Amino acid sequence: MIEYRNLRVALLGAGSVGAQVASLLLEHGDELANRAGAGLELIGVAVRDLDAPRTADIPAALLTTDAESLILGADIVVELMGGLEPARTYILQALTSGADVITGNKALLATHGPELFELAEQVGAQLYYEAAVAGAIPIIRPLRDSLAGDRIKRILGIVNGTTNFILDRMDTAGESLEAALATATELGYAEKSDPSADIEGFDAAQKTAILASLAFHTTVPLDAVYREGITAITLEQVDAARKAGYVVKLLAICERLTDDEGVEGVSARVYPALVPRSHPLAAVHGAKNAVFIEAEAAGDLMFYGAGAGGIETASAVLGDLVSAARRHVIGGPGVAESTHANLAVLPISRVITRYQITLSVVDQPGVLAAVATLFSEHGVSVETLAQSVQAQSDKPGAESAAPSATLVIGTHEASEADLAATVAALESSQVVRQVTSVLRVEGL
Amino acid sequence: MIEYRNLRVALLGAGSVGAQVASLLLEHGDELANRAGAGLELIGVAVRDLDAPRTADIPAALLTTDAESLILGADIVVELMGGLEPARTYILQALTSGADVITGNKALLATHGPELFELAEQVGAQLYYEAAVAGAIPIIRPLRDSLAGDRIKRILGIVNGTTNFILDRMDTAGESLEAALATATELGYAEKSDPSADIEGFDAAQKTAILASLAFHTTVPLDAVYREGITAITLEQVDAARKAGYVVKLLAICERLTDDEGVEGVSARVYPALVPRSHPLAAVHGAKNAVFIEAEAAGDLMFYGAGAGGIETASAVLGDLVSAARRHVIGGPGVAESTHANLAVLPISRVITRYQITLSVVDQPGVLAAVATLFSEHGVSVETLAQSVQAQSDKPGAESAAPSATLVIGTHEASEADLAATVAALESSQVVRQVTSVLRVEGL
Repeated sequence: MIEYRNLRVALLGAGSVGAQVASLLLEHGDELANRAGAGLELIGVAVRDLDAPRTADIPAALLTTDAESLILGADIVVELMGGLEPARTYILQALTSGADVITGNKALLATHGPELFELAEQVGAQLYYEAAVAGAIPIIRPLRDSLAGDRIKRILGIVNGTTNFILDRMDTAGESLEAALATATELGYAEKSDPSADIEGFDAAQKTAILASLAFHTTVPLDAVYREGITAITLEQVDAARKAGYVVKLLAICERLTDDEGVEGVSARVYPALVPRSHPLAAVHGAKNAVFIEAEAAGDLMFYGAGAGGIETASAVLGDLVSAARRHVIGGPGVAESTHANLAVLPISRVITRYQITLSVVDQPGVLAAVATLFSEHGVSVETLAQSVQAQSDKPGAESAAPSATLVIGTHEASEADLAATVAALESSQVVRQVTSVLRVEGL
Repeated sequence: MIEYRNLRVALLGAGSVGAQVASLLLEHGDELANRAGAGLELIGVAVRDLDAPRTADIPAALLTTDAESLILGADIVVELMGGLEPARTYILQALTSGADVITGNKALLATHGPELFELAEQVGAQLYYEAAVAGAIPIIRPLRDSLAGDRIKRILGIVNGTTNFILDRMDTAGESLEAALATATELGYAEKSDPSADIEGFDAAQKTAILASLAFHTTVPLDAVYREGITAITLEQVDAARKAGYVVKLLAICERLTDDEGVEGVSARVYPALVPRSHPLAAVHGAKNAVFIEAEAAGDLMFYGAGAGGIETASAVLGDLVSAARRHVIGGPGVAESTHANLAVLPISRVITRYQITLSVVDQPGVLAAVATLFSEHGVSVETLAQSVQAQSDKPGAESAAPSATLVIGTHEASEADLAATVAALESSQVVRQVTSVLRVEGL
């Protein structure tokens, strides 16, 4: 065996991903050394509780609660603790000491990314984060390197496995949102104590901020990402979507927009949307993730795979580790995070898309005309309209009002602002009983 | 605008990809400079014929027939001429002069890759080739960098758009192979003069050699790639596959195999195979490409996109160009091609897979038993068997022999060697009229 220079690797956190990284590092050390051109010596694993149960065996001698001392002796620091603090402080310490840092911490990057990237550039260290978005799927490196000579027009990602699993169950097994969430929790996809990070779209929003920043060479802060979760999605909506040839997916969307004066900006948003069944994203089932990229020259690309899981995500961390080690062998400052484009980040009101709106209306002459007028008054053009009269309730004591009809309206492209005004007008209209559903239809 | 150091880029070849690279370089120079941290100055484009028509405008002053002088003045040489010579000589000259080289030349890499990579390592230059496999799809960099810490078990790729288009037409439009090929030629997907590079699998075999070498850190020579094209595929096979829940795809397969003694080797092969309709590869339609990767830690990944096309492939070239430029700014020797694993490359006879075999047999008692005995005598285990009696020909003058029956036999996993022996025995059997179809069924 060739003798390599040893690089000291400090691991912070031994949860499901961290424990697998430690285990793979210890098991495949020789092979990794051959690929990296340097030995990767795991010098310690910082944990909060030395005796907590782990998903993979880590020699007790490697465990420590003293993260700060561990960091000071490391060439490469791998942060897999999650959360904002103390992860942020540790990473700043590691970069300051000249170590390269690998992190899978999407919350931290989405919140404090610019601070971390800036320090890394100042001290000439590298910050790797392939594991922070879409787990095992290589997406950061393709965006940063492979597509560096192209111009990204739009990214549509299924980047949260839990919500994709839930929506897929609703679609394929006919389960209600609650039942599908219970199944997801049972199978370990959703957090038992608090699933809101997933189903309210917070997790997807963090990944969206990271992807948009990278794709558009522009700092996109987390609070500029418009966010809707899937909690309002009903089985009725999913069924109606299927009949119309669509499937409901929670999409993370990063889009380059150009206004009437030709000024470019970017939009970053997360919401459930209708995806045509024939589109590759519609075939992403279960807890899988996929990132669909529309580039000016390359055309359409899709990256598909496991978006979570300890060992799957560990693969992405080890890829970064080999890259970091190669850089240590080669020397030089590495590639800085680029924000040179510095485009304006646009609010959701500036987004233009199509919509499918379901209304319960009073079934009486003139209703269609009244509804159509409301749309046109607000500048939203109707593309399709389907009406079905509901069977009148024959329950004794049911309201003796006029029977209801259901209107399903598909619009042409309209701005979020115009659509919001239209919905408000519909809601206060005498002929509309209820705006049952408003779903966006991304142009695909 | 920031003033960057200028890097001199020489382009060899101005065909469909080359012309687009020139055009994008001239058009997006400032943006590329921002991303690369260096200006990218196109100093010339070497062509055979100064007056040949081009798919994109290139200023006449940039065109030259003197490739050698152009190479000598360049920091980065982009070779998009195709063919073995003079491309090989020019690349060796470029590397010797210290320039980094970017190529999309799969034939050259599959044939002379080791020579080129060795020289690059000796002189400390880099050889980039993202455009050589699967056009616009980032696959080289993910394999080399993102999955560097993982272990690839198998790659299944749809890497030839023409054959995928033809098989897709046969499946979805019911066209014969000849009709589908004519459609492909008409649409410009297949070469009019000689489509054999595509339909005989030569193009796919070159890409397979490149992918296998990279994935397994082992030199896989082109002549070690087993190759079957799609010319023997019939509409009947495609229809039968559909009824059985499969689709026929020309697959490029790179697989890590372990023999009974635990010794590892690799297999690289190209042939049409049955893919279950539910598998993501089955959803790759038209001339699209996709590479499905099974990795030990990452699990299943798929990369999907345009496998050819001038501007699409130019995107991959520009990505390499930005990488090369960044490396020039940073300095250092770059990443060498790794062949440290040096696994044995196994012949097709060592491959183990499942098969679907269609036989026309004499319809008489005892035939099933006779056929089953032939399989078991050669160590091939039958998993499924379906028999259908063919309507007897009532044409006057038809042979008065016993009527025929059709047997469709699905096997358990068997070695190619055992299967070949079984097919030979079937062909010389008295009860078998014809071995109509033998298709592999990859475990998916």
